[in-house]
Amino acid sequence: MPHIKVDKDLPGIRALLAFSPATATPLGELAEVLLRSDDGLSRAERELIATYVSYLNDCFYCHHSHGEIAVCYLNGDSETVEQVRNDYHSANISDKLKALLNIAGKVQKGGKHVTTDDVENAGAEGATDKDIHDTVLIAAAFCLFNRYVDGLAANTPTDMSTYPLRAQQIAKYGYGNHIFVEPQPS
Amino acid sequence: MPHIKVDKDLPGIRALLAFSPATATPLGELAEVLLRSDDGLSRAERELIATYVSYLNDCFYCHHSHGEIAVCYLNGDSETVEQVRNDYHSANISDKLKALLNIAGKVQKGGKHVTTDDVENAGAEGATDKDIHDTVLIAAAFCLFNRYVDGLAANTPTDMSTYPLRAQQIAKYGYGNHIFVEPQPS
Repeated sequence: MPHIKVDKDLPGIRALLAFSPATATPLGELAEVLLRSDDGLSRAERELIATYVSYLNDCFYCHHSHGEIAVCYLNGDSETVEQVRNDYHSANISDKLKALLNIAGKVQKGGKHVTTDDVENAGAEGATDKDIHDTVLIAAAFCLFNRYVDGLAANTPTDMSTYPLRAQQIAKYGYGNHIFVEPQPS
Repeated sequence: MPHIKVDKDLPGIRALLAFSPATATPLGELAEVLLRSDDGLSRAERELIATYVSYLNDCFYCHHSHGEIAVCYLNGDSETVEQVRNDYHSANISDKLKALLNIAGKVQKGGKHVTTDDVENAGAEGATDKDIHDTVLIAAAFCLFNRYVDGLAANTPTDMSTYPLRAQQIAKYGYGNHIFVEPQPS
């Protein structure tokens, strides 16, 4: 049960965003810019970083939500998403993304864990300064989102069929205010 | 030295915000709404929560920056700010704020560390649902900001006289884009 009185019909972060529209606006804009930019990292790569960090933070709602969005962008390849969660070294992803996931995992522990070697390794695999910037900020942002959701004990749907439905909506329309509208299972 | 090429004349997060204006806008708006709202928690209380979490995250730039902003709002009372960093139980602050700092410290470790007891204790000291929401989100947001600054190894000014100067600017004008303009020591 959530720690504060929120709309019980809204899942996860959506109930918190509805509780506090003033903070929901910049949080939605941040997610939109960070996760749906096509400049540098792909949308799939951005969602895989978000999924991985949320998994490390043990945020059930976030790692399933963003994992399913990654599945959408990867045309249904849920195996790759599962590999990124459990052992990204063995996943069918680029060496560049593996080097960036290493950085994201360090950021999850704390910013100072990222070393010059980590960044140079990513650069050697083709990561630009913008790729490294975006990786660090996506990882840092999910240290916010995960704590927001679990710190207020937001409702976490246990019906796993709802996650792909919401994911399709996000993949299509993005992180705007319409995310308050819950999709109805058909 | 920063991990990516940023303006070396800008300190801390300012250089990162200038590197990535698209993400700087929602980050600035989030800081403005969360830290300068007068609805519920005072601006001083909000900055004390930010300072405490940044101190726990060992982010030198952030805990000094926000500590000095708190000093501004507290009319120069740097002793209280220092007590909040080191042992808030002994600080000259309300029992409500102490209960909220307890929650903020839990959020810093991870969202699931916050218990129903923690929230009920804060409620018993007069904290509203909005106070608890804002505390969790401020703490979560500084888990972002601290990781953004240290994960990219942003420049950290060692001339401590610059922190109060920037703090006065923020206390007066807020977290808008003008924060890119560095104050000049007189």
